[in-house]
Amino acid sequence: MNIITKNLIGFSYSAVGTETFSSFNPVDQSATPWVFKNATLEELKKATVLAETAFIPYKTMSVARRAAFLRAIAKEILALGESLTTVYTAETGLPKGRAEGERARTIGQLESFANAIENGQYLQPIIDHADANRTPIPKVDLRKINEPIGPIAVFGASNFPLAYSTAGGDTASALATGCPVVVKAHPMHAATNALVVQAILKAAQDTKMPEGVFSCLYSNNYEVGTQLVQDPLIKGVGFTGSIAGGTALYKLAQSRATPIPVFAEMGSVNPVVVLPEALNENSANWAKAYAGSIALGSGQFCTNPGLLFGIASPELDAFIDQLSKAFNQLEPNYMLHPNIHSAYEKGKAEFDAIATKTGATATPSSPKEGLGHGVIYKVKASTFKTNPRLHQEVFGPLSLVVECKNVDELTTLIKGLEGQLTGTILGSETALETNENLVITLQSRVGRLIFNGVPTGVEVCAAMQHGGPFPASTDERFTAVGVKAMDRWLRPVSYQNWPDKLLPKALQNNNPLGLTRLINGNLTKD
Amino acid sequence: MNIITKNLIGFSYSAVGTETFSSFNPVDQSATPWVFKNATLEELKKATVLAETAFIPYKTMSVARRAAFLRAIAKEILALGESLTTVYTAETGLPKGRAEGERARTIGQLESFANAIENGQYLQPIIDHADANRTPIPKVDLRKINEPIGPIAVFGASNFPLAYSTAGGDTASALATGCPVVVKAHPMHAATNALVVQAILKAAQDTKMPEGVFSCLYSNNYEVGTQLVQDPLIKGVGFTGSIAGGTALYKLAQSRATPIPVFAEMGSVNPVVVLPEALNENSANWAKAYAGSIALGSGQFCTNPGLLFGIASPELDAFIDQLSKAFNQLEPNYMLHPNIHSAYEKGKAEFDAIATKTGATATPSSPKEGLGHGVIYKVKASTFKTNPRLHQEVFGPLSLVVECKNVDELTTLIKGLEGQLTGTILGSETALETNENLVITLQSRVGRLIFNGVPTGVEVCAAMQHGGPFPASTDERFTAVGVKAMDRWLRPVSYQNWPDKLLPKALQNNNPLGLTRLINGNLTKD
Repeated sequence: MNIITKNLIGFSYSAVGTETFSSFNPVDQSATPWVFKNATLEELKKATVLAETAFIPYKTMSVARRAAFLRAIAKEILALGESLTTVYTAETGLPKGRAEGERARTIGQLESFANAIENGQYLQPIIDHADANRTPIPKVDLRKINEPIGPIAVFGASNFPLAYSTAGGDTASALATGCPVVVKAHPMHAATNALVVQAILKAAQDTKMPEGVFSCLYSNNYEVGTQLVQDPLIKGVGFTGSIAGGTALYKLAQSRATPIPVFAEMGSVNPVVVLPEALNENSANWAKAYAGSIALGSGQFCTNPGLLFGIASPELDAFIDQLSKAFNQLEPNYMLHPNIHSAYEKGKAEFDAIATKTGATATPSSPKEGLGHGVIYKVKASTFKTNPRLHQEVFGPLSLVVECKNVDELTTLIKGLEGQLTGTILGSETALETNENLVITLQSRVGRLIFNGVPTGVEVCAAMQHGGPFPASTDERFTAVGVKAMDRWLRPVSYQNWPDKLLPKALQNNNPLGLTRLINGNLTKD
Repeated sequence: MNIITKNLIGFSYSAVGTETFSSFNPVDQSATPWVFKNATLEELKKATVLAETAFIPYKTMSVARRAAFLRAIAKEILALGESLTTVYTAETGLPKGRAEGERARTIGQLESFANAIENGQYLQPIIDHADANRTPIPKVDLRKINEPIGPIAVFGASNFPLAYSTAGGDTASALATGCPVVVKAHPMHAATNALVVQAILKAAQDTKMPEGVFSCLYSNNYEVGTQLVQDPLIKGVGFTGSIAGGTALYKLAQSRATPIPVFAEMGSVNPVVVLPEALNENSANWAKAYAGSIALGSGQFCTNPGLLFGIASPELDAFIDQLSKAFNQLEPNYMLHPNIHSAYEKGKAEFDAIATKTGATATPSSPKEGLGHGVIYKVKASTFKTNPRLHQEVFGPLSLVVECKNVDELTTLIKGLEGQLTGTILGSETALETNENLVITLQSRVGRLIFNGVPTGVEVCAAMQHGGPFPASTDERFTAVGVKAMDRWLRPVSYQNWPDKLLPKALQNNNPLGLTRLINGNLTKD
């Protein structure tokens, strides 16, 4: 398959710039063969102007057509076949099975957003009828529905080249609502991105979408991204990545003359509370499950469990021993690219200076560059409390067990944590019930609570909250995963005394879409 | 009634500062007799610490108790009786009828939020069941529900001392969700605020709320407000007021180490399109209705119609003449306070230099200081296009008619406007249908579309969108009015594989609250 290494501006490829870059193959430890040109600011401007031009035709077309576009993207991604998984593995060092799993997730997401807009409930129709006889003043007829906010800039995640990138959740949710998308491609999987861009272009043309509904810009420096979020034609931003990167884009977007919403899903250490009640005959199973969760994909997951809290006891010692031994059995895997690798090594050195190492991934039979050697540490609560570095994420296969004196001390430490994507409790149902204060405290710091499980694995469904208090995300009121991810790109619009036949269908009296609507305060299909 | 002029910190009054101020009586053109002390930063800190302490007990108490608290506030506000309306009129120069109407609105809002939380639907419960047989990996059980975000700072509006201030929509919606509130009182209606604070304190104590659920700070400078939005214990901000004030607080809140959501409802010129089809036998009625809408409450409404667009024609000339003559019949009213008055006079002078005056409110029989003398202007589209000042709000009884050559020119002008709370079209149903591009363009700039009506009058109901693209509000995805105003202070939390009996009631299998829930993608009460 031919990989087109140019920026996609509407329906045309363009590469007028001079700065070039390539992605990196972590297995070979060398640059990949594909050479990309950084987008120029003129190319960027063309992309946003086309996106703005496409906005009204795109948002006003039938939902069936938008759904068909999303499904066509899914079909074309599948049609890329082995080319896609081959390029994906070359750019990430991740196994083919992971590439296939992530592709399935990406396709499933596109399908689920297509289904959601055809279902129509995301429009959240609300009707309050007029009352001409109300005193002292008559009541007007008011009806409210969700509308897309406009062109969205999407920044993909280096650790999810498919599901959280080019045609991932941010793009799919924005396109579903009727918002055109301009993707700033992640330079470290530029070729994977290029293939997906080719799929989206074909889908857009086959389904006769307006030019500008999708564009993609390349760059291996900050200029394109910072200009993109400051472009007045961009009305929202989706980002998945580091706290530093997400926060920088967020602050830029808020300092615009016209601020725009930014949903950045950023770092998390995903605290896990190991209650004494979990440390019984199941202890070894939990140790094994957690060793696997920590090492999975070289620990390069936003839901990787980086912090475990337990109550000091012989049982906790045994658990740490089991966890460390299980971890020692695991082979290290490649890290995505040199920047992530060096940040990981730096973080590990900082932990080395404070905490006690209790386990490490196995020494591979033939040592290679680029592998992320995992480590388990332990530390006393008092040390944890006074070392803020230990509260922060080290992106990679690393986890720290904090030994507390009792549940109260443990709860205090949880209270002091920053916002998190997830919080997990291992233990019995009875223990969950008796430790109410701990549960409430943990809940106040996280977007998702898990009982007796591992935080890795983010189910794509409506009940998923993937987001959390800052810095887990920039706006805890929204999720990046599941159909509710569309809410990030929607705004309500009210129609007052509007003629019935000219209202959006979802608001018309005879309910032609058959939606459940909030009418005069009651949810009804009438 | 004794007016307590001290800051309320939890359940205690405090006034340890030294700087003092009084509000202003626009009728007497003199300071009111009540002397308030600016809050100190220590008092502020005490208030936010108490709010944080109150948060968990307050959010975890029964909904019935929170609803009882809201209804007790309503009852105590009514119990203030004539004291409240007397102080209100003294501080605003507005008539007693307006005070009574706004009190009714305030009480109605408190009631509607109490009803909404008892109804429970605002929790937006979502359930996705587990599927142990799914391949390649089993599906977990996930359930999601809305949770309050934490203590909210509320900044009241000078033009709505009751309904958008101390116990107004921001406070009521935050308290309803389970968020404690710290009000920064508007200095220009400090005494009205003080009475409402007394009502809230009594309600909080009578219904045994935790101390800190509500506090109120006074200040006539920026220090208290800017410190409040930067206080790490404050988790969200509600503001109603000027673009300059709202934007400043918004940017401060976004530059915190931990940014927080700010919903600021700010200025708007509320464009009105007068289509030729409106200028028939109804022309005089529309002229009269608009003269009243522009002059209402000295034009001191965020939905005041500040811009009218028409197609140049003898009929438009006649309408401008009718509008101006109807306006000439109206007596000027007092403006709220000297700052608003001088800003109004400044804006008027700027308009005088560019536009043609066609009408003015009547010269009162006994001229007085403090009256806002209303003006109607007209201007050609070409002049409007090249004078950005004319696009901006002048807060007061002033409106500008823009004469366009045709609907295309008119539509272009609408497209160039900033975000607005409302957009209105006067005309026939057929005209609305044939001018689709105009309607779509207007819709893209506003939160609420109105057909054949006036924008003043903001109905309190679920279908009301009171908000709009920036600078009408800082986040167009939310509303300040109606039960959906609670969404500003709510975040979703997911529970994964959580024991049924320990889930929030709204998520339990047997649906004890009888809510409509999204279960596996279907809205159902089962």
